[in-house]
Amino acid sequence: MFQKILIANRGEIALRIIRAAREMGIGTVAVYSTADAGSMHVQLADEAYCVGGPKSSESYLKIDQIIAAAEVGDVDAIHPGYGFLAENAHFNEVCRSSGFEFIGPSPTAMEQLGDKNTARSMAIANNVPVVPGSDGLIEDDATALATARQIGYPVLIKATAGGGGKGMRVAEDEESLLTSVQQARTEAEAAFGNGGVYLERYVTSPRHIEVQVIADTHGNVCHLFERDCSVQRRHQKLIEEAPSPNLPEERRQAICDAAVRMIRGANYSNAGTVEFIVDANNDFFFIEVNARIQVEHPVTEMITGVDLIKEQIRVASGLPLSFSQSDLQCTGHAIECRINAENPDRNFMPCPGKIQEFYAPGGFGVRFDSHVYGGYTVPPYYDSMIGKLIVHCKTRDEAIATMRRALKEIRSTGVTTTASFHDQVLQHPEFVAGTHDTKFVEREFTR
Amino acid sequence: MFQKILIANRGEIALRIIRAAREMGIGTVAVYSTADAGSMHVQLADEAYCVGGPKSSESYLKIDQIIAAAEVGDVDAIHPGYGFLAENAHFNEVCRSSGFEFIGPSPTAMEQLGDKNTARSMAIANNVPVVPGSDGLIEDDATALATARQIGYPVLIKATAGGGGKGMRVAEDEESLLTSVQQARTEAEAAFGNGGVYLERYVTSPRHIEVQVIADTHGNVCHLFERDCSVQRRHQKLIEEAPSPNLPEERRQAICDAAVRMIRGANYSNAGTVEFIVDANNDFFFIEVNARIQVEHPVTEMITGVDLIKEQIRVASGLPLSFSQSDLQCTGHAIECRINAENPDRNFMPCPGKIQEFYAPGGFGVRFDSHVYGGYTVPPYYDSMIGKLIVHCKTRDEAIATMRRALKEIRSTGVTTTASFHDQVLQHPEFVAGTHDTKFVEREFTR
Repeated sequence: MFQKILIANRGEIALRIIRAAREMGIGTVAVYSTADAGSMHVQLADEAYCVGGPKSSESYLKIDQIIAAAEVGDVDAIHPGYGFLAENAHFNEVCRSSGFEFIGPSPTAMEQLGDKNTARSMAIANNVPVVPGSDGLIEDDATALATARQIGYPVLIKATAGGGGKGMRVAEDEESLLTSVQQARTEAEAAFGNGGVYLERYVTSPRHIEVQVIADTHGNVCHLFERDCSVQRRHQKLIEEAPSPNLPEERRQAICDAAVRMIRGANYSNAGTVEFIVDANNDFFFIEVNARIQVEHPVTEMITGVDLIKEQIRVASGLPLSFSQSDLQCTGHAIECRINAENPDRNFMPCPGKIQEFYAPGGFGVRFDSHVYGGYTVPPYYDSMIGKLIVHCKTRDEAIATMRRALKEIRSTGVTTTASFHDQVLQHPEFVAGTHDTKFVEREFTR
Repeated sequence: MFQKILIANRGEIALRIIRAAREMGIGTVAVYSTADAGSMHVQLADEAYCVGGPKSSESYLKIDQIIAAAEVGDVDAIHPGYGFLAENAHFNEVCRSSGFEFIGPSPTAMEQLGDKNTARSMAIANNVPVVPGSDGLIEDDATALATARQIGYPVLIKATAGGGGKGMRVAEDEESLLTSVQQARTEAEAAFGNGGVYLERYVTSPRHIEVQVIADTHGNVCHLFERDCSVQRRHQKLIEEAPSPNLPEERRQAICDAAVRMIRGANYSNAGTVEFIVDANNDFFFIEVNARIQVEHPVTEMITGVDLIKEQIRVASGLPLSFSQSDLQCTGHAIECRINAENPDRNFMPCPGKIQEFYAPGGFGVRFDSHVYGGYTVPPYYDSMIGKLIVHCKTRDEAIATMRRALKEIRSTGVTTTASFHDQVLQHPEFVAGTHDTKFVEREFTR
């Protein structure tokens, strides 16, 4: 087992990793930017080295500085957390070639899964469903009609050079298909100078469901059930929960099995997440693999009792997984709310600054993963998440009730948080019924 | 079910009860002293009424003021928490006669169990072992010798008028018995003007083990397993854990069964704790019943998953218990450390005052029940507990490791806490082995 590891990150995830390492008896080395000099991850690590200026590009993204800290700290391994360099295959490679184990998958697996086309091909090769679509661009009307018939309506027409919704159309039936293709072509030509379009199944009422997976270097792969992360705003997850509401057991098994096939097929080791889009019929389609630990990993920890960070460290050190698939059970229901220093009444504008007084919610069923305290200054340079509020109860209804009472307890004078917004979401009938999809927040909470 | 309850307490237990009530959809009324005007239990309750000055005798013990607040707040029931009026049978009676349900046992059960002699007789009547002793005072040498032979050596000679160790002697064998009895008599005569003495089995290596019990008003009684509270200083519990280390399963079953017999025999309803002293042979002897919720109830909540405060409220409203004995299972290991605003380097002198910055420990497996935050002033009028740090892990070793890392995270500038003392206890070989008794702290940590 490692004697000492470096954590190439900041904020709550740096703390999370320090905690796991300390409980395992492993020494910890923190790195920090000048803006984070007084922060909790620096205070709680055994050693800490400054790696540069406040901007991420000057510090947390500086590979040479981080490797230098690892050398000075004489660590055995590097944990990248999430964000920053976590899915940078080059950093992964440099760590290893500098003699430090990288706590994550191999650079090859990371690179392959990081490329959307390669990942899609790997999914198809491993019998993991992908969103049905045309093979390449649509050349003529006959191909358009034939392809759409094969995919099934409604279909989405997308510009190959597209972005921001430009050159995108939904066709509900054959009558509107050809007109829509023509409109999309014209719009794409005007916007991007490239009129190429392709077709894809338009997924109605899409839910975001992902499967937590972990694999060791001895060929063992386990899934730790799924999470529903459909409460999103501008593709940012806000609330995550496990298990998914309203997912039939047979579908749960099928999606988890698909995730394991994907990870096995990719020769992947360490923790990863296979993300899917799930439609109104509970058909699921592969989106991508996140080749790292995720923000929302605690909901899975709560329902399984598995410490995912400790397991990541074990696996990276060459040990086999400490459990087999049949050891894992899903107990109760867990929800996580990301508490951001943002003003929900002002279009979620970030609110960095000094927190004067801070009361952290607690009590039975409540876990709070956070690096902030009364007197802490939220720097303006990084993401605005100041904590993750996680509850674990016997039922989903109880989890919602506990989360609502815990949200009300957060006192954060000086800095506005999104706690009140979460409370509104949690009492919305669609959320309570578990029938919400990824468009729920935009549809219901946009003023 | 109740619509609204009053919490006749302060600090973390007031918060604990507010949390449970809120999660159940029950309104809450807080009472507070002028010293607690800005405290969290006042901020988080739906309503709050000042009941008097800073001293407990001017506020939290003022029965008429508390009843007046219950009347103004128009509540259905009163939860007394622990301490203050929690075991005051008169208050219990006044609540009921004023039309408010008292969330606890009947005044009769409370009164009977509050009297040590009555409680001892009830234990004997219900076949619950008590510390073997003489029936009344020792009149002459022959009786002393005969009684000691029956009890078994070593025996403890205690003055009937005694206290503070005066008139107390341990006799290891027959040779020393008569001399010791004479010495005890002389000392007691000098100290109290009463030379009456009696004999009791001297319990060697005593452990404090208690059983959490809850009963409804329909005749259902369940135990929720036992807790070990042997880490004490001057009879104050410092660390509690569940399950007890080194207690054979057959003994666990026997002690839990005895507790249920005691509670059933007392016609007791609501939550209560049956306390035992356990000797080196794992023989257990009844001490007393605590007719209220206890400080250390969270360790039981963690291993059983039962919210004891919610269950107290349910039972008080007339509902049956939400579980039967066979539903209850003990999962993992939980430890609680009481974090006090005291200086362990200055003989645990209380350290009230303003907490400048406060970081509350968190993360996987950690529960923190506390009313304090950066900016909060610990008043000098009440007990010095500022929070309860609770961990729940798969094994005792993991729980110790998690507790140690969590203790290190507490940052409390301006007010010294006992966190560092707990860390020393947790790494002591006797505690690690679970072989410590109630004299452990005095023996090992007195300088």
